[in-house]
Amino acid sequence: MKISPQDIDHIALGGSFLATGGGGDLLIGRILTKEALKSTGEVELISLDSLADDALVAVVGGVGAPTILLEKTTNGQEPIWALEALERHLGRKVDALVPMEAGGLNALAPFPPAGVRGLPVVDADGMGRAFPELQMESFSIYGVSATPLALASELGDTQIVEHTRGPVVAERLVRDFAMIAGGGHCISAEHVMDGATAKRVCVPATISLCRDIGELLTRLRGDLPGFLTALQDRLAPTHYGVCRKLFEGKVVDVSRRIDRGFDIGEVTIEAFDDPHRSACIQFQNEYLILRENGTIRALVPDLIILVDNETVEPVTAEKVRYGQRVAAIGIGAPALMRTREALKWVAPRCFGIDEKYVRLEDLE
Amino acid sequence: MKISPQDIDHIALGGSFLATGGGGDLLIGRILTKEALKSTGEVELISLDSLADDALVAVVGGVGAPTILLEKTTNGQEPIWALEALERHLGRKVDALVPMEAGGLNALAPFPPAGVRGLPVVDADGMGRAFPELQMESFSIYGVSATPLALASELGDTQIVEHTRGPVVAERLVRDFAMIAGGGHCISAEHVMDGATAKRVCVPATISLCRDIGELLTRLRGDLPGFLTALQDRLAPTHYGVCRKLFEGKVVDVSRRIDRGFDIGEVTIEAFDDPHRSACIQFQNEYLILRENGTIRALVPDLIILVDNETVEPVTAEKVRYGQRVAAIGIGAPALMRTREALKWVAPRCFGIDEKYVRLEDLE
Repeated sequence: MKISPQDIDHIALGGSFLATGGGGDLLIGRILTKEALKSTGEVELISLDSLADDALVAVVGGVGAPTILLEKTTNGQEPIWALEALERHLGRKVDALVPMEAGGLNALAPFPPAGVRGLPVVDADGMGRAFPELQMESFSIYGVSATPLALASELGDTQIVEHTRGPVVAERLVRDFAMIAGGGHCISAEHVMDGATAKRVCVPATISLCRDIGELLTRLRGDLPGFLTALQDRLAPTHYGVCRKLFEGKVVDVSRRIDRGFDIGEVTIEAFDDPHRSACIQFQNEYLILRENGTIRALVPDLIILVDNETVEPVTAEKVRYGQRVAAIGIGAPALMRTREALKWVAPRCFGIDEKYVRLEDLE
Repeated sequence: MKISPQDIDHIALGGSFLATGGGGDLLIGRILTKEALKSTGEVELISLDSLADDALVAVVGGVGAPTILLEKTTNGQEPIWALEALERHLGRKVDALVPMEAGGLNALAPFPPAGVRGLPVVDADGMGRAFPELQMESFSIYGVSATPLALASELGDTQIVEHTRGPVVAERLVRDFAMIAGGGHCISAEHVMDGATAKRVCVPATISLCRDIGELLTRLRGDLPGFLTALQDRLAPTHYGVCRKLFEGKVVDVSRRIDRGFDIGEVTIEAFDDPHRSACIQFQNEYLILRENGTIRALVPDLIILVDNETVEPVTAEKVRYGQRVAAIGIGAPALMRTREALKWVAPRCFGIDEKYVRLEDLE
């Protein structure tokens, strides 16, 4: 399927929804991506199933604190520089690009280099949402080495992390390159694998889901109940499954700091109808846990999404502000992110939250 | 000239002298190097002049806080891993290795990989002493790009810094790899250049100088006046020139902390014959400035060296201790490290010391 400029708008909007509060400013990503594709022509989005087993694919995405991109845009060349550095290192070309994450800017990151190189983008990703760290990608979780990986900064610095003893060391090296060379942000081309492996380790059909959610958000703008019903219908037959409204109210407090390259903080929401009922959401780039009057209503790896209560636009953790009227939506994590293997890397304790994971459908 | 096991002992001892207080524990380096060369055979030390103009050379050395090596040794394979990663990246083999610095462990670092690979080591280095940062190497100062460079950690992590906008970004990426992947230490293979360039940018004849100083220290052990006279004779015709005793006394205070991967602190010495006369030496891995009762007697890039007053053994900043009886020796920096270009990178202000550089021979 050819991806049109309108599809890019929809993927951007759906991506900011699946970003669960993180993922960066999609307005910038949308403009840059459409601008890039204007000169290179449309990009093909192909299904995971259609990948040849011996195709060589690489994962492409950005790493860093999304807040930084509010002040400092990218120059647009980083994904190409990173991809080219990776290919130089491999001594061969890749056949297709896989988005690192369906949530946020990274849903779009592979499109510009795919356009330049005439490569398809695979309709899949490594999270089915957004997560802050490399070892939380399904590729790593299911045994694909992140290295060799190539990094590029806005000013053209490039680095190859050739081999590490595990994904956590790779993650730290990548994040430090982002901080040192990229002023807080860089692009990574990583997790080189063949098509057969990709079919086993990728979360399938997530970019087309982004696009469909973006289309729903556009069509049902200002109609929260209508959007929720349509979204539930769209998700029911997928590997996400459950979707429900968690809370509605007014933001009465936001704390936020940048720590180790992450946006970290807490949002407190008071119910419209009852000042004694409030929800508190902790975030580390993404929303991680929602407690209502101290009782857990949803927690990571399940998706917690804030939308503006009137427009139904996604509200990111970097922009949520005092007085905003919001609704919190919970969605089950994709099946691949809920296995015992996955929970070693994406359970609440992996984010410093001392709670056992309970599936959204098993919480009240 | 073939380097014998005894030469290794002398280079180690001379290297700990030229390390000006930094450079790591030479006992460990000496044992590891001799052990390595036992199985690979002797290594040839060749003069800078004898390098073919079109030979490909690479600089090899360790990066990190020397104190860490007191607690955690290296596994000895890092220089080979780093060199091989660099050669994989270049797609070709190098013809000779250049020591990063003549001071400290790095005077020995190229010998084990040279032994394994049957390569010669060039009798030269990038400092003629020891310095804490990559941009302070004469290679960088005189325009050779540090990148592409390859890094290896004790546990086999490897990384290639392919391109940076300048040596300071490269230095930070290297140091962070040392901290993240190497527990504070790693080996770098870097500054790839041809023989013609090496002749222009390297400090010549410094490894043979190390060996000769080590030989003097061994022969004249316990004879400080005899050693000083012999050293002055050895240095007078070289590009170092001046050499003098700066101070003698007892260490009455030492402060020391690890900061950003460096050993940082201050040593205070009281004159034997006069409690009102004292010298204070600041260090950042290496000794940087010596003030006697507040008056500057020597400062970086000139060499400040502490030796045990009785044995004449070099005393490193990581080991100097209260009550130790020491002599401080000053030596002029090699000519290549005193030019206007060099002083941009190695003047006192590059170490956070707000003093103008004055040559040792122009200070009382």
